[in-house]
Amino acid sequence: MKFKLEATDTKSKARAGLINTDHGDIETPIFMPVGTAGSVKAVHQRELQYDIKAQIILGNTYHLYLRPGLDILEKAGGLHKFNGWSKPILTDSGGYQVFSLAENRKLTEEGAIFKSHIDGSKHVFSPERVMDIQRIIGADIIMAFDECPPYPCDFTYARKSMELTHRWLKRCITRFDETEGKYGYSQTLFPIVQGSVFPELRKQSAEFIASCEREGNAIGGLSVGEPAEEMYAMTEMVTDILPKDKPRYLMGVGTPANILESIALGVDMFDCVMPTRNARNGMLFTSEGIINIRNEKWKDDFSPIDPHIRSYVSSFYSKAYLRHLTISKEILAAQIASIHNLSFYLWLVGQAREKIKSGEFSVWKNQMVEKVSRRL
Amino acid sequence: MKFKLEATDTKSKARAGLINTDHGDIETPIFMPVGTAGSVKAVHQRELQYDIKAQIILGNTYHLYLRPGLDILEKAGGLHKFNGWSKPILTDSGGYQVFSLAENRKLTEEGAIFKSHIDGSKHVFSPERVMDIQRIIGADIIMAFDECPPYPCDFTYARKSMELTHRWLKRCITRFDETEGKYGYSQTLFPIVQGSVFPELRKQSAEFIASCEREGNAIGGLSVGEPAEEMYAMTEMVTDILPKDKPRYLMGVGTPANILESIALGVDMFDCVMPTRNARNGMLFTSEGIINIRNEKWKDDFSPIDPHIRSYVSSFYSKAYLRHLTISKEILAAQIASIHNLSFYLWLVGQAREKIKSGEFSVWKNQMVEKVSRRL
Ligand SMILES: [Zn+2]
Ligand SMILES: [Zn+2]
Repeated sequence: MKFKLEATDTKSKARAGLINTDHGDIETPIFMPVGTAGSVKAVHQRELQYDIKAQIILGNTYHLYLRPGLDILEKAGGLHKFNGWSKPILTDSGGYQVFSLAENRKLTEEGAIFKSHIDGSKHVFSPERVMDIQRIIGADIIMAFDECPPYPCDFTYARKSMELTHRWLKRCITRFDETEGKYGYSQTLFPIVQGSVFPELRKQSAEFIASCEREGNAIGGLSVGEPAEEMYAMTEMVTDILPKDKPRYLMGVGTPANILESIALGVDMFDCVMPTRNARNGMLFTSEGIINIRNEKWKDDFSPIDPHIRSYVSSFYSKAYLRHLTISKEILAAQIASIHNLSFYLWLVGQAREKIKSGEFSVWKNQMVEKVSRRL
Repeated sequence: MKFKLEATDTKSKARAGLINTDHGDIETPIFMPVGTAGSVKAVHQRELQYDIKAQIILGNTYHLYLRPGLDILEKAGGLHKFNGWSKPILTDSGGYQVFSLAENRKLTEEGAIFKSHIDGSKHVFSPERVMDIQRIIGADIIMAFDECPPYPCDFTYARKSMELTHRWLKRCITRFDETEGKYGYSQTLFPIVQGSVFPELRKQSAEFIASCEREGNAIGGLSVGEPAEEMYAMTEMVTDILPKDKPRYLMGVGTPANILESIALGVDMFDCVMPTRNARNGMLFTSEGIINIRNEKWKDDFSPIDPHIRSYVSSFYSKAYLRHLTISKEILAAQIASIHNLSFYLWLVGQAREKIKSGEFSVWKNQMVEKVSRRL
């Protein structure tokens, strides 16, 4: 993987860059649609590529490990071959899902022991095992195995958790560096900064992560319930420390406004289930603001969902038709809303990139944060 | 509406024809995907047109009347404008759903009184009202209001029901002929032959329907649980009586084999929920036979779903990936299987049409019936 910084905003820390992988380039800042089980829910691969114009998608190691399982993924030749998505893929480490979905989970120095939420079978994730698993899944960017503490948590817990994450990282790096990709293309490992909302821990963690000198770095443990101001404060501290010449990935963030503010703080990569999960509940993100499509006011609004967004669905289907489908619990409602919301997110980061390059980012960002946050 | 008979098979009663409507041509024999509430479940309109190559879709009057309701449909300018499908649409009369879905239903000479299965509100469908409703929905082909007797039913019930359907038909025709389409294009009314599985009643009904001299005719009350042989026997009797120069629509039929056999008996138009409903349960119709994609045997079969079918999904996605999505209850599974199954149905009737025109239909049909019925 290579990263080239193309432009930096003069009034903020926003950056435009280019990540080069063996599965193609990624223009940053970028949003990565979440494809939990190897599918971005309700969206065809063709739509991801040509309508949404996704450049990289995310897969969840915990889900893929349990189903279809490593045997199938390896026989297929990796996740790209299995699901037909030939552009870059990033996988998380599975740690977050082990602690939120799995049953009978137990944390030790060695790793995490848990039972599958699907069939109750017993499994162990260690730093080494998680590296091996992500080698087999075959993502272009793989994540270190970390513990993501809950919010709120006390200082002592957060410190111990961060120290464990750091010890695990060393084991991840050792294992990663002594193994190779299975399918002929290269993979890269991103370490993760933790430290909850404690500035002193965040600083310590960011310094440790920076010292590992990997090709890219991630910020984890945010957007877990803390106030947005704390999230921005932690992000700013960390991006001040992480190297400028490497991409920075803020995990699990967030709303359109969160993304714009975090771009201003120097973040390059984002992922979040919000555009797809909220789509399935009838919430649309548009260039004019947020729409609850179930609302009566849209029942005879025959205007397109959002003509500014250049996806098929955004201009083809009307608000009234989408409302009808949503109220009628038609599958097509989830399909339309998911494609639209993801197209909006990709449009938004694309616009941010253009504005950074043309030097207009800061003014535009402040206008957009207000616009995309209002409820229509 | 116009109908041109283009070719007739010499060894069977199979026909190839062309229906001309104000929303475009329909090549027969044809299969019509079912779009109950104005959406063919899990399928985008773009996919219907370019992947599945549907030429006409069906809408359900009962569902559309209740939701979004006539007010919205009329404001939209009819169903075509509302859902963005600009090719022909056929609507049923709603009678079947009133008797299968609605609550507190009561049948009188005047019509049917029922309560909505959605909100319990009370409604009346009469022959006149159902004509008015379908005028507002704006389908190109609208169906007479009939009673579809259950199977089995005794002769007296079937006779009385048929006579009521005939009296209702006269009222439908009177109302239809004294009203006009609301949106500037013409609509046509198809009467429906009933008579359960009683040859004497079917003959009487077909003669009455033929005497009404409408532009096309339908055969109802079959594929409701009777043995296939009885369905074919009734269909054959009826197509012997219905005029040759008008399209014949066999309602609610059926499996790929049912469709091929009925084409051989002189049927031109079909609809059925089977390709989409079964798709959502993991059952695939392919050019080699029937697949239950949940079956373990497909878990590492990375071959395409069916390379003979020229839709994106049929050649892009593998059986193993579709199995994984189905087992994981991913929405994309329903999307892929629905597009594939409908593409298969449209391919099948398209092949039948070619074989009728080239004089090879009967031999081909017998081979295909066996092929498409076997379980893989
Ligand atoms: Zn999130
Ligand atoms: Zn059917």
